[in-house]
Amino acid sequence: MDKKGKIGLTVKKEQDFSEWYTQVIRKAELADYSAVKGCMIIKPNAYSIWENIQAYFNERLKKLNVKNAYFPLFIPESFFKKEAEHAKGFTPEVAWVSNTDEGERLALRPTSETVIYDAYSKWIRSHRDLPLKINQWANIIRWETKATRLFLRTREFLWQEGHCVYETEKECNKETLLYLDEYKKLCEDLLAIPVIIGKKTDKEKFAGALYTLSIDALMPDGKALQMGTSHHLGQDFAKSFNIRFLGKDEKEHTPWQNSWGFSTRLIGALAMVHGDNKGLIIPPKVASTKIVIIPIMQKKSEEKVLKKAKEIQTRLKKYNPLLDDSDYTAGWKFNEWELKGIPLRVEIGPKDIAKKQVILVRRDTNAKKPVKITNLIKEIEKTLEQIQNNLLNNAKKFLDSNTVHVKSFQDFKKAIKNKKLIKAPYCNSVECEDNIKDQTNGAKTINIPFYQPKNIRDNCVYCNKKAKVICYFAKSY
Amino acid sequence: MDKKGKIGLTVKKEQDFSEWYTQVIRKAELADYSAVKGCMIIKPNAYSIWENIQAYFNERLKKLNVKNAYFPLFIPESFFKKEAEHAKGFTPEVAWVSNTDEGERLALRPTSETVIYDAYSKWIRSHRDLPLKINQWANIIRWETKATRLFLRTREFLWQEGHCVYETEKECNKETLLYLDEYKKLCEDLLAIPVIIGKKTDKEKFAGALYTLSIDALMPDGKALQMGTSHHLGQDFAKSFNIRFLGKDEKEHTPWQNSWGFSTRLIGALAMVHGDNKGLIIPPKVASTKIVIIPIMQKKSEEKVLKKAKEIQTRLKKYNPLLDDSDYTAGWKFNEWELKGIPLRVEIGPKDIAKKQVILVRRDTNAKKPVKITNLIKEIEKTLEQIQNNLLNNAKKFLDSNTVHVKSFQDFKKAIKNKKLIKAPYCNSVECEDNIKDQTNGAKTINIPFYQPKNIRDNCVYCNKKAKVICYFAKSY
Repeated sequence: MDKKGKIGLTVKKEQDFSEWYTQVIRKAELADYSAVKGCMIIKPNAYSIWENIQAYFNERLKKLNVKNAYFPLFIPESFFKKEAEHAKGFTPEVAWVSNTDEGERLALRPTSETVIYDAYSKWIRSHRDLPLKINQWANIIRWETKATRLFLRTREFLWQEGHCVYETEKECNKETLLYLDEYKKLCEDLLAIPVIIGKKTDKEKFAGALYTLSIDALMPDGKALQMGTSHHLGQDFAKSFNIRFLGKDEKEHTPWQNSWGFSTRLIGALAMVHGDNKGLIIPPKVASTKIVIIPIMQKKSEEKVLKKAKEIQTRLKKYNPLLDDSDYTAGWKFNEWELKGIPLRVEIGPKDIAKKQVILVRRDTNAKKPVKITNLIKEIEKTLEQIQNNLLNNAKKFLDSNTVHVKSFQDFKKAIKNKKLIKAPYCNSVECEDNIKDQTNGAKTINIPFYQPKNIRDNCVYCNKKAKVICYFAKSY
Repeated sequence: MDKKGKIGLTVKKEQDFSEWYTQVIRKAELADYSAVKGCMIIKPNAYSIWENIQAYFNERLKKLNVKNAYFPLFIPESFFKKEAEHAKGFTPEVAWVSNTDEGERLALRPTSETVIYDAYSKWIRSHRDLPLKINQWANIIRWETKATRLFLRTREFLWQEGHCVYETEKECNKETLLYLDEYKKLCEDLLAIPVIIGKKTDKEKFAGALYTLSIDALMPDGKALQMGTSHHLGQDFAKSFNIRFLGKDEKEHTPWQNSWGFSTRLIGALAMVHGDNKGLIIPPKVASTKIVIIPIMQKKSEEKVLKKAKEIQTRLKKYNPLLDDSDYTAGWKFNEWELKGIPLRVEIGPKDIAKKQVILVRRDTNAKKPVKITNLIKEIEKTLEQIQNNLLNNAKKFLDSNTVHVKSFQDFKKAIKNKKLIKAPYCNSVECEDNIKDQTNGAKTINIPFYQPKNIRDNCVYCNKKAKVICYFAKSY
């Protein structure tokens, strides 16, 4: 059977993490390489996760009064250059269209601040037009030159980008944090991935921002993965694009802006954090198929078992269960759906029918439990919740037990070698940041946590001058 | 008040349809021009309509077992050229990216057959992999050289494209029609736009297709607008991209394919068909905000009225009503929300409170009706349904009364001048099609209805030779 050959991972997560990751992504049919170098195909199994993330987040956006819209893919080169820092930061990654009748090249959006703020400058007239809060779901183009990693580094990916304009700096500050906090909830409540939250250093902030806030998660290989960012843009873009409003005081003012985004790389994070040597594990809340029903066929009882399995499928309708009635063996099906990460399996065979029960099997712990059919819905509800919580708790334990506090650069280097997330006192100078990166084969500042000790008595882990902050460091994606 | 100046259309639909359309689109804040020539910004009021169309259609796709996925924006030039007819048809409209490290130029997808079928050739091995039914929601690039019409002709637009692969020609035939029929339902049931359904002539079919089916609607200016197409692709793409499968007979076979799509131009159609001289009218089923509540403020009773209005907003929660408690006058608000097309208005003032009632005002007929608050939900439910039905019926009447049967070319030309949709006997030759177009300043074949008379006794409306079919003709967008 040719399909048989496809399933099953051939490496272990703890042995060759990178290869394990690629196998999970491809064998669980989340994504595939495209013939276009550096691009990926997001297959239905992953796209449905993205749609569930979208549905969750759209619900939140509605509550926060942010509206969805869609802006052009193309950005004239002249727009792109209006905000100097921004242009400098993004230009190396831009793909250009030039066979047009425009007088200038057109960039394919690597992010949409410039094209959106040009429109805002025409839409905003008065304080009555503020706050203006718009989000778009879009494809993004960044012409990466490093090797492709499915979901993590591709030349095209999908994301959302929010772009808000406010009357006051205070309001802008508050909401820049608000959206980041929404991202944290999304990661933790929906994806069961705990994150560290804080402020990027000046070196790592968004090109053109006053400051950038970020959430980051620790991957099993000790690398941090940025899960979302929220940028306080200050007034620089507004000045560059001439966004002005007539205030309540009847005078002209320059507004304050933020922008914030997360991307399909969240799906890569989900696979890395929760997957195991059997394959993917999808947290129930973000799984489109939460349950797979597998009839255990034995000679002479096939019809009876299948009928019962269908009954159970109907009974469990609200969970959108999949009934695998194909002619593969039960063992083959177990492997297949474990690989694909369906959180809960319902087995039913002739013996179970006699006992008016099914067997529930958890994907995360492999625990099996007979459950009376009359109790099934209640038990499933509870078990799905347990799986969701267990995945989050495991990830939290991993994060906690792999976060180390270090005070010396010797300990720092050791911790990086041991694939740890580091919390260390830091002088917050670009010079130290560069030196640390050089001498650790790539460890970077991740973010500076919001909650800092009142008095930092320690010295910078690198230069030994007085530390200004406690900062997270790690290698990163 | 500068906002005041913005509202209200300055031309009538029956006087200058083209200018009326642009004003409705811009003043109802559906879309705006972008500084990028030929591109548009889809503003929140229109994007929410698109999201409702997506939600409706995703539900249908799920039932039909079609899964959503996402394929790259970029198509290598060599792929693009594999299917000769296809390449010929699309090349003039392609935008290219050339500053890449690829050995060849990359097209920005004007449609995705080629990049998707390259992937399919790797995914499909056996009859067990069929049917393969995938849809994507994506942005599409066609470098139009004619003037931009918001929603109708822009260089970038949003669409869905379905791409299915089948074992047999029969199955493919059946489903090519099935998806078109879904489009018809979407247009009629959701958007309240009646359509004519049929087969495109060979001249008008999709580049690379065996045949194309279409639905088309008649706009108030007598032009037909293509609302959706479904292409039977035969086996040509499969052969060009080497898609093969091992059949149940253990032999290799070439599968059959179709593709089908509709785009954001549906929003333009909705505006044209239902709008009036007050502005947009959104059919209730596709309106995110179905109801606007307007408190009629009079001195001394403001607080009481506002409180009641809020109570009503809560009571009507499931309709997601908007309460306009801004400090504009009631009259200003009436105009504003009529312009934006909210289907139903609820007015409440001190006299209404005394009578325990509100006034319901229909956007489509302007009919006002006092309704007891205890009956409100029932009455609103009924009225929204009436509005939906009335919009469809009006559009049907318009379509019927503007469809004419003609048998002579003289009558044909007169009918085109009178902005009619024509049904005429036709020999189905490209030569006549070209001549008709030339001599009518652009009238084209729209489609050939499925239901044809058994014996066509008439002669071709143009060449007078024996007619083969009855065909729809009109000028078109």
